Amino acid sequence: MMKKKNNENENAIAREKEMEAADDSLLKEYGKAFHEILAEKHIIDSTITMLQWELETITPPGGQALLSKQMGYYSMKSYDLLTSEKMQKILACFKKNRDVLSPVLKREAELLTEDMERLRLIPPGEYKAYKEFLTESQPLWQKAKAAGDFSMFRDALKKIFDTSKRFARYEYEAKDEAYRKEKTLYDVNLEQYEKGMDVARLDEFFGALKEEVVPLLRQVLKRQGGKKAKNPNLTVDAQKKLCRYLSAYLGFDFERGTMAESEHPFTTHFDKNDVRFTTRYMKNPSTFSLLSTLHETGHAIYEQQIDDKYTGTILGNGSSNGLHEAQSRFYENVVGRSEAFWKGLQGREELEPLFSKTSLGSFCFAINKVEPSLIRIEADELTYPLHIMIRYEIEKGIFNDTIKVKDLPEVWNEKMREYLGITPPNDGAGVLQDVHWADGLIGYFPSYAIGSAYAAQIYASLRKDLPFEKILEQGDLAPIREWLSAKIHRYGSFKDSRDIMKKATGEELNPKYYIEYLKERFLK
Amino acid sequence: MMKKKNNENENAIAREKEMEAADDSLLKEYGKAFHEILAEKHIIDSTITMLQWELETITPPGGQALLSKQMGYYSMKSYDLLTSEKMQKILACFKKNRDVLSPVLKREAELLTEDMERLRLIPPGEYKAYKEFLTESQPLWQKAKAAGDFSMFRDALKKIFDTSKRFARYEYEAKDEAYRKEKTLYDVNLEQYEKGMDVARLDEFFGALKEEVVPLLRQVLKRQGGKKAKNPNLTVDAQKKLCRYLSAYLGFDFERGTMAESEHPFTTHFDKNDVRFTTRYMKNPSTFSLLSTLHETGHAIYEQQIDDKYTGTILGNGSSNGLHEAQSRFYENVVGRSEAFWKGLQGREELEPLFSKTSLGSFCFAINKVEPSLIRIEADELTYPLHIMIRYEIEKGIFNDTIKVKDLPEVWNEKMREYLGITPPNDGAGVLQDVHWADGLIGYFPSYAIGSAYAAQIYASLRKDLPFEKILEQGDLAPIREWLSAKIHRYGSFKDSRDIMKKATGEELNPKYYIEYLKERFLK
Repeated sequence: MMKKKNNENENAIAREKEMEAADDSLLKEYGKAFHEILAEKHIIDSTITMLQWELETITPPGGQALLSKQMGYYSMKSYDLLTSEKMQKILACFKKNRDVLSPVLKREAELLTEDMERLRLIPPGEYKAYKEFLTESQPLWQKAKAAGDFSMFRDALKKIFDTSKRFARYEYEAKDEAYRKEKTLYDVNLEQYEKGMDVARLDEFFGALKEEVVPLLRQVLKRQGGKKAKNPNLTVDAQKKLCRYLSAYLGFDFERGTMAESEHPFTTHFDKNDVRFTTRYMKNPSTFSLLSTLHETGHAIYEQQIDDKYTGTILGNGSSNGLHEAQSRFYENVVGRSEAFWKGLQGREELEPLFSKTSLGSFCFAINKVEPSLIRIEADELTYPLHIMIRYEIEKGIFNDTIKVKDLPEVWNEKMREYLGITPPNDGAGVLQDVHWADGLIGYFPSYAIGSAYAAQIYASLRKDLPFEKILEQGDLAPIREWLSAKIHRYGSFKDSRDIMKKATGEELNPKYYIEYLKERFLK
Repeated sequence: MMKKKNNENENAIAREKEMEAADDSLLKEYGKAFHEILAEKHIIDSTITMLQWELETITPPGGQALLSKQMGYYSMKSYDLLTSEKMQKILACFKKNRDVLSPVLKREAELLTEDMERLRLIPPGEYKAYKEFLTESQPLWQKAKAAGDFSMFRDALKKIFDTSKRFARYEYEAKDEAYRKEKTLYDVNLEQYEKGMDVARLDEFFGALKEEVVPLLRQVLKRQGGKKAKNPNLTVDAQKKLCRYLSAYLGFDFERGTMAESEHPFTTHFDKNDVRFTTRYMKNPSTFSLLSTLHETGHAIYEQQIDDKYTGTILGNGSSNGLHEAQSRFYENVVGRSEAFWKGLQGREELEPLFSKTSLGSFCFAINKVEPSLIRIEADELTYPLHIMIRYEIEKGIFNDTIKVKDLPEVWNEKMREYLGITPPNDGAGVLQDVHWADGLIGYFPSYAIGSAYAAQIYASLRKDLPFEKILEQGDLAPIREWLSAKIHRYGSFKDSRDIMKKATGEELNPKYYIEYLKERFLK
């Protein structure tokens, strides 16, 4: 231990000396080395993305073992590149000379320095062991979910939460006193997925939501009565053709992307020229795939519209999880659940398989019907944020030691009863339904609700500039897509999501737009 | 240059000394290091395979640039691992101590030493430059093929042949005089795809074929008269279901593999637990996908049946190109074009979409109809080897300087007229039809014809042990699959294809079985 510390001190002194001597030629040399390392990292990171894509869309059961090995190998290569002595030197030099860096390089260095500094607080051995553990815990979760039995996954989940808290603590304790006074341990995780987000803001956000959405839900259910939604019984083949058509109609460029099928729909990208999304074809409702396609296309269009100048840099990605989710929710809900959108599609030959089986009115009722249900990803627009609230309260409770992992099934079911009035028949349809925790993603869920709120806020702003309904009814969505490109998409990660939202909508996250939007949609 | 030579001498002397001192502990240490390097190489090589799979099955046009970069990067990583100083030391040590190595390790070391020694004769700079050139020439070939214009690809193809000859010469000139007396430059390439194969043997093989097949073809065409084949007009959806059913019926294990679609059908594998093949759905003939599925399933079953003990070693692959092609041709032709095979399938519910549109007799005539045609991969069983012969004669001619690349369209068309009696309407349907040369694969084609001949030879041997027709008619192919597993598949690359064939059939390649088989099939 001591030896290591001494080495670290020596390294620190040597680096300090070097930095003082930093001149143009060193900056140039480091700039070149920086781009070489990042080019290599991009190749490796996009390989990891490809392996994940393969796992979700095509890998047979027999292929999973080798795939796990490959993922582990490349994850460590990527980690090694980012935390290498060379990279540390470069980033330290850039930090010191930030004023002379190009804007892109400066932003890249900032983001990487944050990542690297966070990673360096975790002992490499612990980090690697945790990554390996996660590849093992994923199939365990799958089995437990299929069996509907939490006890099969309980110990693994405890280890995941314990490790996540321990890693958060490394970072939390390295912060200054002012930060620690203001923030909680859970905030460390929240920040990873949505910069600037913390428990204080989210308590306010979810507080407002709880106050408004829970009574709104009761009101809507009462108005809706027992009216049943009609399933148009689309065949899988018809769904496939419709999904492809709708995605292109929103503006997805199939020359620079592709569509496939997976158990859980998702979007991914290697760079903006190869953006991929999946959907899932269900029998009932057979419209699930259509809405899910609109959702994923929203993510995909965001990536496809990032400015070319960020391609190949680490800025060639959407800015934050919340802002990404805003694009998907915008296309799925604000656009895709509106009557105007489907009016603009009526009469087209490609929509015939749908509208020969259902009327516009009956279809729009079906895709907007409110019905408290068990599964988050199948939830309607109004109950959706309540699903997120449950997960937020649980994560927060585990991080502040008021909830124990072993009690999760009871805690989960109790909250489901309180907010949604239903009880899961087993853990598979309850606490085990999502993959996120098994993947080690703690603090991720709130970004889904933030995304919905951002989407409503973006909508309020966009309506001021554009005749939204008219555009939808006319059946050419280019003006909306271009507005999003100019205000949001083109920046990639060059700007923080907070800054982008502020410039695009005039303010940071404000839940009032979301609540207004929900009221307008569901009480009109 | 001198410095490098000196270094090499010093290295050689140092290595020599080390080897003399080789004892158990060094062997143990090297054994461990060897397996570590190979484990890493397997991860990287299977990633390259995955990238190729992606390119053929799903990558959108926009994604090809990044994919090329990734392939180039991993190819060089794999090359570096194999040619590293460390690996050279290990392999030299193993060579010296071969008698005490385990049989598997000994075989691995032998094969790798061959590869490494061949690679080391090529200056690394030239090797890398050529690999990069090939990634650029592939899209060029695609464009030229689409335009049907050889001149667009002529210069690139000249460079490919020139480089291939130069690389072959490095190896040829490093051989002893006895080898050079007996062998030609082209033999260096032939050996890469089929050990022990050379121009002397192939001249004999194709000579016999020419003598027998060309007159046989005339005879068959005369007998066949103007009878037309009927296309059962299967829908793509029906083809997909039939292909999946047929593949499982032959014995493909979908838990350890998968099926997809691509322009050119192919089979690949990451290891025996993830084996993948593709097919192509055509309108006319709509049975193309069925036969192509039988073909690729033959390749796939070979990989799936390799003994578990070779998984993760470099022996976990089929033994040679020719022997691989033998398995695919055996399942496609010997099994899949026989009436007994389809008799065994008649009456099954899954075959109803086919047999409701065609009778057994009419279908078997259609899949066996002989008709000289332009495209190799769509050729019937009898004219197929003539397509290969053309390619063999051209490659041989370029290597012995009797054919010039610039004259290829004329040479090609002339040979098509001579052997098949037809003239391609353009270069896309002629000399540019295959991807192999654009991929730098020179000397590969003959293994296709060897495969057909091996298949007939295997068939002759298998019939002595098993009631072949009866098994097919009874509709359970397990005995045939198990015979192939026991005699051929299980060995992987642990044995040479020549040794495997000798043990399984009693002799090395003998074209007489192939000619007998063709006569029996087409004159019966």
